[in-house]
Amino acid sequence: MKETQPIALFDSGMGGLTVLKALADRLPGEDMIYLGDTARLPYGTKGRETIIRYTLKAARKLLENGVKMLVIACNTATATALPALREHFAGLPILGVVEPGALAAARASRNGRIVVIATEATIAGGAYQEAVARIRPEAVVLGRACTLFVPLAEEGWMDGPLVEGIARRYLEDIFTPPAARPDTLLLGCTHFPPLQQALRQVVGTRVRIVDSAATTAERVQQELASRSLLRESASPGRRRFLTTDNPARFIRTGSLFLGRALKDAEVELVDL
Amino acid sequence: MKETQPIALFDSGMGGLTVLKALADRLPGEDMIYLGDTARLPYGTKGRETIIRYTLKAARKLLENGVKMLVIACNTATATALPALREHFAGLPILGVVEPGALAAARASRNGRIVVIATEATIAGGAYQEAVARIRPEAVVLGRACTLFVPLAEEGWMDGPLVEGIARRYLEDIFTPPAARPDTLLLGCTHFPPLQQALRQVVGTRVRIVDSAATTAERVQQELASRSLLRESASPGRRRFLTTDNPARFIRTGSLFLGRALKDAEVELVDL
Repeated sequence: MKETQPIALFDSGMGGLTVLKALADRLPGEDMIYLGDTARLPYGTKGRETIIRYTLKAARKLLENGVKMLVIACNTATATALPALREHFAGLPILGVVEPGALAAARASRNGRIVVIATEATIAGGAYQEAVARIRPEAVVLGRACTLFVPLAEEGWMDGPLVEGIARRYLEDIFTPPAARPDTLLLGCTHFPPLQQALRQVVGTRVRIVDSAATTAERVQQELASRSLLRESASPGRRRFLTTDNPARFIRTGSLFLGRALKDAEVELVDL
Repeated sequence: MKETQPIALFDSGMGGLTVLKALADRLPGEDMIYLGDTARLPYGTKGRETIIRYTLKAARKLLENGVKMLVIACNTATATALPALREHFAGLPILGVVEPGALAAARASRNGRIVVIATEATIAGGAYQEAVARIRPEAVVLGRACTLFVPLAEEGWMDGPLVEGIARRYLEDIFTPPAARPDTLLLGCTHFPPLQQALRQVVGTRVRIVDSAATTAERVQQELASRSLLRESASPGRRRFLTTDNPARFIRTGSLFLGRALKDAEVELVDL
């Protein structure tokens, strides 16, 4: 492995671009290659075996580019396929977003009552609940599947009364009881950060809303540094974006996740 | 082909069950085998080549069961892949839902102003607009993509203020102008019939809401009769349901589309 090689990021769609953004802010000189499996999205309603099969395929595609690290910027794939990935690609550093997300929530919470919202598959697997328990064993973690947030965000509907109404339907019962109120909401899906403003309307101003993007970028830096793989470069790194379907849609909505306009030349259609 | 062979139905998910229901009401003695490609759902946001590839694969799987007819109970797949299917499986009668849906709308409309709502891919392809024009050349057909309706229906959120709010956001501008008001709303996606009550709140009581399920069943009967393939049987036909992912979810939500409880033994997981 050499420090000039790119970092690979994988997500089922465009949500992982929130992780790439955090990573590019922290490590601007690194080359990055991103694969969004938009043709098979959403992963979060799929079964375990299917998610593992798709994630391994996507990883193989990314590895064709000679990468020095793989970041699974998808909570569902991390929660479901990380052990299989590490087994298949031994020797390559592979990081997921669940541990960093759990760390962010464990750090943010004062009363130890944490709500994690994610896809059906992530919540059912219990990975966040377990990861927080490893860091703060006394914490109480409640998981809630918010299936519709993924298509909402992919449709580009990020705020407004409808998004708030959907968020309210999913979360109201958790955040209204007077006692034992959670003080931290962990966004356990990389699609959710753009919905933050709508979520704020539902949970109120006293709840901390955290996600895994910033802590994942921190972990990537630590891991690369420990292996002497950090790239010291004054010029900005190159970015490539691979999508399995509909590049026009990727450019349009991806820009909302990435926080900057995507250029046609950066986005390529690939088949897995 | 023999009349005792089953009729095959294909959809990207569970929406096609609304067509199976109409078909079972009209032809209760026929055996039917249904394939819902839930692992790859939704098709409606995917590109043309991807939809064709997936639909051909699904058709091959269904044809392993020696069927006498194939019904593409998915508007996106019909609008995109019907010519490719007829080319690949020449000799087999293959019916889609676009022509029957267009016929239902053309029959229902008095003033010739028709709105068709469907997925992004179906609307972009213009198949409905063309099919109505063939039947009623003077009709004015306006298409509108309603992407979120598919995950809403698959989540089992069929009515209530949120669903109405989403419907309003998609449709309000079309149904509020005082003049040139459309009098017919065609549900150009087999996922949409369960959302009918919410749509009614948005379009008002004077607009006719039609879908392709009943007219498709009518066309299937005509086609089978013309080939002497109708099965005359006093006992009810057998039903088999194949899904590419998550049978538990298929049973839970599929029952809402089918209008009756699905039994565990009827639903099988298959890989394409």
